[in-house]
Amino acid sequence: MDMEKLVSLCKRRGFIFPSSEIYGGINGFWDYGPLGVELKRNIKDAWWRDNVTGRDDMVGLDCSIIMNPRVWEASGHVGGFVDPMVDCKQTKERYRADQLYVFGLAREMPGPDAEHLRQGATGLEFPSWVEHRVSAVGASPLDAWELARPKAAKLLKTKPASLGDPPAATTALYLHLSPEERSRVLGPSADEPGTLTEPRQFNLMFKTNVGALEDASSVAYLRPETAQGIFANFKNVLDTSRVKLPFGIAQIGKSFRNEITPRNFTFRSREFEQMEIEFFCRPEDSQQWYAYWRKERFDWYVRHGLRSDRLRLRDHDPDELAFYSQATADIEYEFPFGISELEGIAHRGDYDLGQHQKFSGKDLTYFDEDTKQRFLPHVIEPSAGADRGTLAFLCEAYTEDEIGGEARTVLKLHPRLAPIKAAVFPLVKKEGMPERAEAIYRDLKRRHNVFYDEKGAIGRRYRRQDEAGTPYCITVDGQTLEDGTVTLRDRDSLVQKRVPASGLVGLIGDLLDGSADLAGIGS
Amino acid sequence: MDMEKLVSLCKRRGFIFPSSEIYGGINGFWDYGPLGVELKRNIKDAWWRDNVTGRDDMVGLDCSIIMNPRVWEASGHVGGFVDPMVDCKQTKERYRADQLYVFGLAREMPGPDAEHLRQGATGLEFPSWVEHRVSAVGASPLDAWELARPKAAKLLKTKPASLGDPPAATTALYLHLSPEERSRVLGPSADEPGTLTEPRQFNLMFKTNVGALEDASSVAYLRPETAQGIFANFKNVLDTSRVKLPFGIAQIGKSFRNEITPRNFTFRSREFEQMEIEFFCRPEDSQQWYAYWRKERFDWYVRHGLRSDRLRLRDHDPDELAFYSQATADIEYEFPFGISELEGIAHRGDYDLGQHQKFSGKDLTYFDEDTKQRFLPHVIEPSAGADRGTLAFLCEAYTEDEIGGEARTVLKLHPRLAPIKAAVFPLVKKEGMPERAEAIYRDLKRRHNVFYDEKGAIGRRYRRQDEAGTPYCITVDGQTLEDGTVTLRDRDSLVQKRVPASGLVGLIGDLLDGSADLAGIGS
Repeated sequence: MDMEKLVSLCKRRGFIFPSSEIYGGINGFWDYGPLGVELKRNIKDAWWRDNVTGRDDMVGLDCSIIMNPRVWEASGHVGGFVDPMVDCKQTKERYRADQLYVFGLAREMPGPDAEHLRQGATGLEFPSWVEHRVSAVGASPLDAWELARPKAAKLLKTKPASLGDPPAATTALYLHLSPEERSRVLGPSADEPGTLTEPRQFNLMFKTNVGALEDASSVAYLRPETAQGIFANFKNVLDTSRVKLPFGIAQIGKSFRNEITPRNFTFRSREFEQMEIEFFCRPEDSQQWYAYWRKERFDWYVRHGLRSDRLRLRDHDPDELAFYSQATADIEYEFPFGISELEGIAHRGDYDLGQHQKFSGKDLTYFDEDTKQRFLPHVIEPSAGADRGTLAFLCEAYTEDEIGGEARTVLKLHPRLAPIKAAVFPLVKKEGMPERAEAIYRDLKRRHNVFYDEKGAIGRRYRRQDEAGTPYCITVDGQTLEDGTVTLRDRDSLVQKRVPASGLVGLIGDLLDGSADLAGIGS
Repeated sequence: MDMEKLVSLCKRRGFIFPSSEIYGGINGFWDYGPLGVELKRNIKDAWWRDNVTGRDDMVGLDCSIIMNPRVWEASGHVGGFVDPMVDCKQTKERYRADQLYVFGLAREMPGPDAEHLRQGATGLEFPSWVEHRVSAVGASPLDAWELARPKAAKLLKTKPASLGDPPAATTALYLHLSPEERSRVLGPSADEPGTLTEPRQFNLMFKTNVGALEDASSVAYLRPETAQGIFANFKNVLDTSRVKLPFGIAQIGKSFRNEITPRNFTFRSREFEQMEIEFFCRPEDSQQWYAYWRKERFDWYVRHGLRSDRLRLRDHDPDELAFYSQATADIEYEFPFGISELEGIAHRGDYDLGQHQKFSGKDLTYFDEDTKQRFLPHVIEPSAGADRGTLAFLCEAYTEDEIGGEARTVLKLHPRLAPIKAAVFPLVKKEGMPERAEAIYRDLKRRHNVFYDEKGAIGRRYRRQDEAGTPYCITVDGQTLEDGTVTLRDRDSLVQKRVPASGLVGLIGDLLDGSADLAGIGS
């Protein structure tokens, strides 16, 4: 699947727009249009229903985005939530140093010595005969090279197309260069070398000031994750909700990260929505609960339509783990732009409660009525991105096929997630069909989000609903007026059945929740 | 109803907590606990269902909180969304100048000349024999006086209690004083007069910086309202959704205002959630749609349980209207702290679309297929506060009554809004009652948010559910095991009926949506 086609469909059909588009947008921010808002609501509602109200061992929470800044000292975000950055003194641009690649260029490149160039080994320093060092930011050396190539060609007085892949021996991350090497690098937008600063740490939290004074005393942050609001409320929930271990606290809400290079459509944006659970349990049961949530969350995506071969569960290597974590697994999806994380399930031990206990001075231990012991529970954290989930469901659903030799674009969304559940059409705009179709529409609308359309050829109307991901289309035709049956069309199989209009409310409900199957009904 | 009692119930039962409470909180921010999050979700879902998915003429939208800052130039918020402020040069505190009251104190106060003091008329300047001017911030002169009283008593060398109401002749808003007068005012926390600055304008938008640079070019704002995101997307919705006038765009989401003096529990907070509609129509139909929404939105609150005598609809006087508005009405509720606005319904003409058209340079006109004319639609804006609505529903629901001589606190929430729909109890923890009750609980839980409780005396269990606002309690007792019936108890009327356990899923559903009435069923 082509990412550009999906982005274009999302724009064209009102799923996702660039934020503030009439003002040229704002990098890293996105808006959900009429279809997108329903899709995302359905995903969030399904998550809430399956993880909160449908369970006995989970309660919900909804915290403020701006919290007391001490929360972020305790969590480690004030000190450690940083990316390395490099400034350009000439252009004032700023770059993520771990994505700033430097390419060494010898004057004879791409001449006969190109092979010689490739024989260097480490990539961490440049041979002495390298004269130019040109840099660019990219997710990989190849990405960066595509951006650096025109400038490299200009320096070498050749054509961009004549330059092949970057020679490995002269490719290095800016972070890995010596200060002397750095002084000879030409910045991505600079006119001469040596304008890039040494890398320094940049905090990803958005800062603001709360209250009337704009000084250090009033600094506050937009939360970079919803999880800490749960830990900060652990004691309140414990004191007011009669919960007993094991139990979880769940929250859905916006978080903000000032990403230096937002990219890949809504995947890495600066404002995003999370669906997070902190599941508290006895230390001795924590491995078992970790295994439970690792499987449960993976299965949730499969149940809602993510095909298992694009969806993966990757256990972190021991050297990837945070020092407090006993185990972490990522649920990853193979997006068109690469394999990326949808959700992480982390065994965080008692690290977070311990930190908040230390910083707040409040007792956050749990008293076990049975054993009469006090202790800090361990926590398993399944942390999902609502926008990333939405994007994965869209990518998976996007399908191009053919009907009778005609190309069709269809979103094969799970019925539970589809924005519109059914569309009702009169075959033609006469002979009482619109009136009959509208009556069916009214009836269905009391229970489901349905759509009425009487404009244009019936084939075009089907196609519009296919693109919107609507699982069922109901058509009122001449026969309806005679025998009261309508045509019910399935988006994916294209099967059409005649069913009585009188039973549609129940039937659509059963089809949506999977308790009926179109193959087994009608004629 | 006593506000303190409600705040205490909200804390005790997990409806609403102060944000970051273990760190001493943060003024103007609140968290919703396990019961509160369900209540607020139900309110937002009811609004969305009634105003978006249940209608033919409305689509939804979900915009980012941080938008291109030009949006706020066009809307007028950068220039005009201000409160007048006064700084104290000594303490660095800042005050809202329109709430900073100054009280003049003559040395002989509260002696025999008190009557004489009251004979002054304007309150805009102090008589020459007034020697001290002490100030304090309050919602009204009386509020402020309560805070200024101890300082006034100290200056007059008397006891605070001996000072009565502030004498009208020597009470003035700081804003109304002359510079000479201001120089002789003692600030609320200052040690000597003359430390307060001249009033100046303070913008209520929270500022942050997006991207790597922290300078004027990267300044962005947290949206102070969701409405502008709708206007900024008007063209996108028009181009992608086949909407035709009249139609509305609806959005639910967080907004932020750096209120100088947040107060009245969640009523005036710095982070809050809005439910806004922009309803676009032909200019000639706009008065009719204004009348429609004014009534429709008022009725929505009544339908969900706000008693009409505390709920009011107040039309703005012509001199209250913004210059572009033809009419505005506030839906107000009589809270324990006073009559305050829940929602405003404003006729905004084509002001907003006109502003965005001008600032963005994009054509935002609507093309009418029938008349072949292009024009800017007029807009009616019903703008509701989700937190204010939640608070009003809680205030209205809070009831203290007596059962058999015993005091009871009960939240008489509308069943559609109640966090828990029904609770299931075994009368005692033996004779198979818990197993039977749990089976009923499991059955109900597939469709409704229900609660199971087997701990403690049955009366206490009822009382806990009453406080949580649960409309129905179902008790399994000895007779259940014999004839399969359970006791169904109504929270408000306290009526108890025996009904068959087998039909409970349908019955509870019918009771919740109002299609059944407990009075008419069972025995």
